[in-house]
Amino acid sequence: MARTLEFYFDYGSPYSYLADTQVEIIARRTGAALARKPMLLGGVFKSTGNQSPMVIDQKDKWASSDLALWARFYGVPFQRNPHFPVNTLALMRGAAAAQIDGVFERYHPAMFKAMWVDGRNLNDMAEVGAVLTEAGIDASRMAGRIQDQDVKDRLKATTDEAVARGVFGAPTSFVDDLMFFGNDRLPFVEMALAGSLK
Amino acid sequence: MARTLEFYFDYGSPYSYLADTQVEIIARRTGAALARKPMLLGGVFKSTGNQSPMVIDQKDKWASSDLALWARFYGVPFQRNPHFPVNTLALMRGAAAAQIDGVFERYHPAMFKAMWVDGRNLNDMAEVGAVLTEAGIDASRMAGRIQDQDVKDRLKATTDEAVARGVFGAPTSFVDDLMFFGNDRLPFVEMALAGSLK
Repeated sequence: MARTLEFYFDYGSPYSYLADTQVEIIARRTGAALARKPMLLGGVFKSTGNQSPMVIDQKDKWASSDLALWARFYGVPFQRNPHFPVNTLALMRGAAAAQIDGVFERYHPAMFKAMWVDGRNLNDMAEVGAVLTEAGIDASRMAGRIQDQDVKDRLKATTDEAVARGVFGAPTSFVDDLMFFGNDRLPFVEMALAGSLK
Repeated sequence: MARTLEFYFDYGSPYSYLADTQVEIIARRTGAALARKPMLLGGVFKSTGNQSPMVIDQKDKWASSDLALWARFYGVPFQRNPHFPVNTLALMRGAAAAQIDGVFERYHPAMFKAMWVDGRNLNDMAEVGAVLTEAGIDASRMAGRIQDQDVKDRLKATTDEAVARGVFGAPTSFVDDLMFFGNDRLPFVEMALAGSLK
């Protein structure tokens, strides 16, 4: 039976973006299914007592070189977003709505690209609307959807599920009950999918 | 000209232990010199506002499986130390003394093994003395040396130097001015030593 790579992420996490550029490739190489699970990282931090690594100045400074190195290693475009901190609640609710409504395959890459390639100001809902329109998504419909209870409930349920499984940061991957925190653990994720762990 | 792998570590850091099992191999493969630099991680945390990742319960829990996975991947023995938290000030001063006095090659592997393989109680100075004796080091002389000013100064100087270079945690490696945080960045360290970065 094919394994599944479950990938918990938040659009505000640059290491989530980097890992996201790899998960489809890894799933394909290992014949695994891929389940992207949008969660609210701020909610995870609140539940676990954790905080963004970027609050430590020296860590934030090092992350700039580290992120650039990973981007080069993967061969993907990347720049840090100049509009941080960005509140991702609306964006992550949008991801939940997009999954329910069947437009996630357009929504998802557009949002990561806007945040970590194009450096757009996603605190500005007009700018988010422009990004959605460019991606061929009905922006005014989406603006309404993220206020709907089924959408709020879905994001909250996924976030709670993540915390219940042991998640404390993003990105976090699961292969069955094996948890792997961080973009830098993707080689272990691939080994687990290939059945060469355990 | 041969490059140097500068390796900042603290005996209280399990990821430092894991990385330490690899740095000689990496230096040999790349023809690099290796400079192990004992620092006081508690001092680094204090200077940078950082803290042990293990204070977050869910991170600490995950680390147990992650550390075991790295140990298996490297093929080295490992167990978490049951006596944590351990104050490593005396141990790190001992490393500084051992470097000054020319017994570091016996001191260093003995201390990492006692902490992360044998699970000994290194909060207990009698136990530390036993570890030193087993390693062929004069334990009573060392007990005196870690009170000497030259030893205290050396550890403080290395710790301050680390912070000044941008260090916020352990282990941290440098290749020239390129900094790499974490055991998991050793592949990048090796690429830098081999000249395939930049």
